[in-house]
Amino acid sequence: MSKVLTSREENYAQWYNDLVIKADLAENSAVRGCMVIKPYGYAIWEKMQRVLDDMFKQTGHVNAYFPLFIPKSFFSKEASHVEGFAKECAVVTHYRLKNAPDGKGVIVDPEAKLEEEYVVRPTSETIIWNTYKNWIQSYRDLPLLINQWANVVRWEMRTRLFLRTAEFLWQEGHTAHATYEEAMQETETIIKIYADFAEKWMAMPVIQGYKTENERFAGALETFAIEALMQDGKALQAGTSHFLGQNFAKAFDVTFTSSEGKVEYVWATSWGVTTRLIGALVMTHSDDNGLVLPPKLAPIQVVIVPIYKKQEELEQISAVVNQITAKLKNLGISVKYDDDDKRKPGWKFAEYELKGIPVRLAMGPRDLENGTVEVARRDTMEKTVCPLENVEKYVIDLLEDIQTNIFNNALKFREENIFKVDDYEEFKRLLDVKGGFYLCHWDGTAETEARIKEETKATIRCIPTDAPEEDGKCMVTGKPSKRRVLVARAY
Amino acid sequence: MSKVLTSREENYAQWYNDLVIKADLAENSAVRGCMVIKPYGYAIWEKMQRVLDDMFKQTGHVNAYFPLFIPKSFFSKEASHVEGFAKECAVVTHYRLKNAPDGKGVIVDPEAKLEEEYVVRPTSETIIWNTYKNWIQSYRDLPLLINQWANVVRWEMRTRLFLRTAEFLWQEGHTAHATYEEAMQETETIIKIYADFAEKWMAMPVIQGYKTENERFAGALETFAIEALMQDGKALQAGTSHFLGQNFAKAFDVTFTSSEGKVEYVWATSWGVTTRLIGALVMTHSDDNGLVLPPKLAPIQVVIVPIYKKQEELEQISAVVNQITAKLKNLGISVKYDDDDKRKPGWKFAEYELKGIPVRLAMGPRDLENGTVEVARRDTMEKTVCPLENVEKYVIDLLEDIQTNIFNNALKFREENIFKVDDYEEFKRLLDVKGGFYLCHWDGTAETEARIKEETKATIRCIPTDAPEEDGKCMVTGKPSKRRVLVARAY
Repeated sequence: MSKVLTSREENYAQWYNDLVIKADLAENSAVRGCMVIKPYGYAIWEKMQRVLDDMFKQTGHVNAYFPLFIPKSFFSKEASHVEGFAKECAVVTHYRLKNAPDGKGVIVDPEAKLEEEYVVRPTSETIIWNTYKNWIQSYRDLPLLINQWANVVRWEMRTRLFLRTAEFLWQEGHTAHATYEEAMQETETIIKIYADFAEKWMAMPVIQGYKTENERFAGALETFAIEALMQDGKALQAGTSHFLGQNFAKAFDVTFTSSEGKVEYVWATSWGVTTRLIGALVMTHSDDNGLVLPPKLAPIQVVIVPIYKKQEELEQISAVVNQITAKLKNLGISVKYDDDDKRKPGWKFAEYELKGIPVRLAMGPRDLENGTVEVARRDTMEKTVCPLENVEKYVIDLLEDIQTNIFNNALKFREENIFKVDDYEEFKRLLDVKGGFYLCHWDGTAETEARIKEETKATIRCIPTDAPEEDGKCMVTGKPSKRRVLVARAY
Repeated sequence: MSKVLTSREENYAQWYNDLVIKADLAENSAVRGCMVIKPYGYAIWEKMQRVLDDMFKQTGHVNAYFPLFIPKSFFSKEASHVEGFAKECAVVTHYRLKNAPDGKGVIVDPEAKLEEEYVVRPTSETIIWNTYKNWIQSYRDLPLLINQWANVVRWEMRTRLFLRTAEFLWQEGHTAHATYEEAMQETETIIKIYADFAEKWMAMPVIQGYKTENERFAGALETFAIEALMQDGKALQAGTSHFLGQNFAKAFDVTFTSSEGKVEYVWATSWGVTTRLIGALVMTHSDDNGLVLPPKLAPIQVVIVPIYKKQEELEQISAVVNQITAKLKNLGISVKYDDDDKRKPGWKFAEYELKGIPVRLAMGPRDLENGTVEVARRDTMEKTVCPLENVEKYVIDLLEDIQTNIFNNALKFREENIFKVDDYEEFKRLLDVKGGFYLCHWDGTAETEARIKEETKATIRCIPTDAPEEDGKCMVTGKPSKRRVLVARAY
């Protein structure tokens, strides 16, 4: 069979784009920079949502919904926030269309101009803190632990499916606290949830850390992030959790009376992950044959393909398969039996490889006779023949094994591509040859950070939370440094 | 305790608004016509979503996501569609803000004007059918059974929380079929799902029917609807399912090659329910003490309140309550134990009445001694004392009983307020006195329909699907009629 994908070796960016489109995850739409998330891609997002939502709820969070639009004036209330987002805002200026005078189509009705324009939310801190103002009076009203699942719009100039799109889907948590400590604790709780989700569900190892001032969220005092390494050696920021201090409380005048009767500003956090995670998932595990999905997030975990010539054979096979299917579904496994007569088994095998179904069972007349079934695992492409009486147990163990195996592979890849480097020339040379993660000493100044970015296109991804104290010299300036930071080129 | 709500008798509209706000379901936002759905209101929406989503999936539908924005030109491709929506569209004209020249705040950057404006989707037929064009070539690609959960914007001039807001949340299904019959079947399947959901989950009886030409969705050949009767005698349209014929396929040139090799236009349906359902839920069951929620959609089904003076008593009570809670949770019931020391039991009782928690358990020292617990049901406000060993069984039965009882009450109310009327003067008189549903003969003309609306503000809600054939005379013109239609004033 001819390969439907460009190979990673040949052109990684093209491979990614081919794969997203050919595996039916998403496609570009008629609206600049906006994608259509197709059913198969959306099914992965739904699985992610369900797991994350449960994790948020288990830690005391509730969901709510705030308006899509933000009055323009709200936007400028927090100075660094507006600075960060103003350049990429979609703006609603009118509220009506009317028939064109020439009778062809419609035009914007100039008489329906808004007094104050609305920005389509790029993030919701401003509208939410304007709302919290009315919800918070006393320490008894705190904490507020609220999340929303929503769409947001950032008018990015260069877009790529899932990784960077003008509209994307995400969750944004916005919490309000009585103390610095509690807000900081929340910020950390969430980044741990994100890291857990990335590693245990997406099978994607991540490095937790905090951002340099320059890379922080617009309006945050501290931004925690998880960073993953993609197969092409580039970093991908997979989730962020921001400690906002009292910045938004001050901008929107949100105070509370403490238990001691003092009036104080409220402490805030915000945090989010987006449909970008689907891009990260694709790039972490997939290969030149198609998607490789972690069983825990695969919309279909097991596909069963009958191999037959005569209708009678199909009926016999289906009778056995229906029993297997029922048992697997009972165990909570999602199974698809593809007995579509219009497609040949070879076509189906290739299709389900492309779609990344973790386990494929195939059953033909020989299997029927022998009481066996052929089991193929997507990650290693290995096949084995399994006795029918063991098949449910075998499949369950195999799904777990695949989940572990692809995590270990990704971890191994990262371990092989993370380098301690102390010499700037060496750093630049290696970066061009291999990409990867670099642990380097940095003198802590914005100037050096900017120079690295300008000269190498690499950025300081984070200061890893678990970085040990270690005396060293900045690889660029030779000035003293207390710990290594994580540097990489990034998506 | 003084009542926190205006009574229904005194001012139904005010009662509704008070209730939505005081029960923490939603509130108005700083953005004209847009609401904030608060956590308690959103929790009801999440329950609705989960149930509906399962029903859609069980009938073969999958979810996807299409862009928020629609190019203005798409909008005018289907003539009656644009006619229906153009007057209430939020329009994005620019994609950037910049600092104001006077240094105060930000302004829309005039250089960042879009070549073609985007409409914020009021509904997604146009962008979706423009996409389907690329997905459908052959009969093998059909049917497409796709749903999306999304926000939409319709710039309504008069808004009311949940019932009519500029932005609202909904699901919109958009399906594509090879034949008229299959598309019509889909339209009917969905309206039955909506009716089932309304009656079995919301405990809200509905009348199914189809709309007159004048009341159809803009672009539909047939619109099916479910209509419910609110306690003030007004109708509320709770869900619609549209048979779109080949209108959108023709507007967007979506054809397929049939199994016989002929090129044909695709047949379409679309269908939706919105956060308006929460308003319907509130208005169907609630009373002057607050919300009454059906157990199947109540975010908290059982609340437990300890009655104690000493800390020691609380501890003893809590030990017993924790066992009850664990058992109820095991049975899939959502339980809240409110041992907050800052509030008195009386305050809590009133609060949970207001919030419509179906069952309240209260336990004091006397109960501890006797091995009993006090059980109060929200619908009838009746209390009973139940032996501890029976409590789980009792609560489960009670929840079912409440679900049935509030449905029966709503059905009884509707039966008492549905009138067969043959005389137009009588109709007008009764309508003013009682409101309610009217089954009347109508001559089938748009003129008569318009006259009824103008003279009485009532509209033909639907032609009930199960209306028997019956010779009669139009109550307005005396012309012949074959069946009665449902007429009412509506939200």
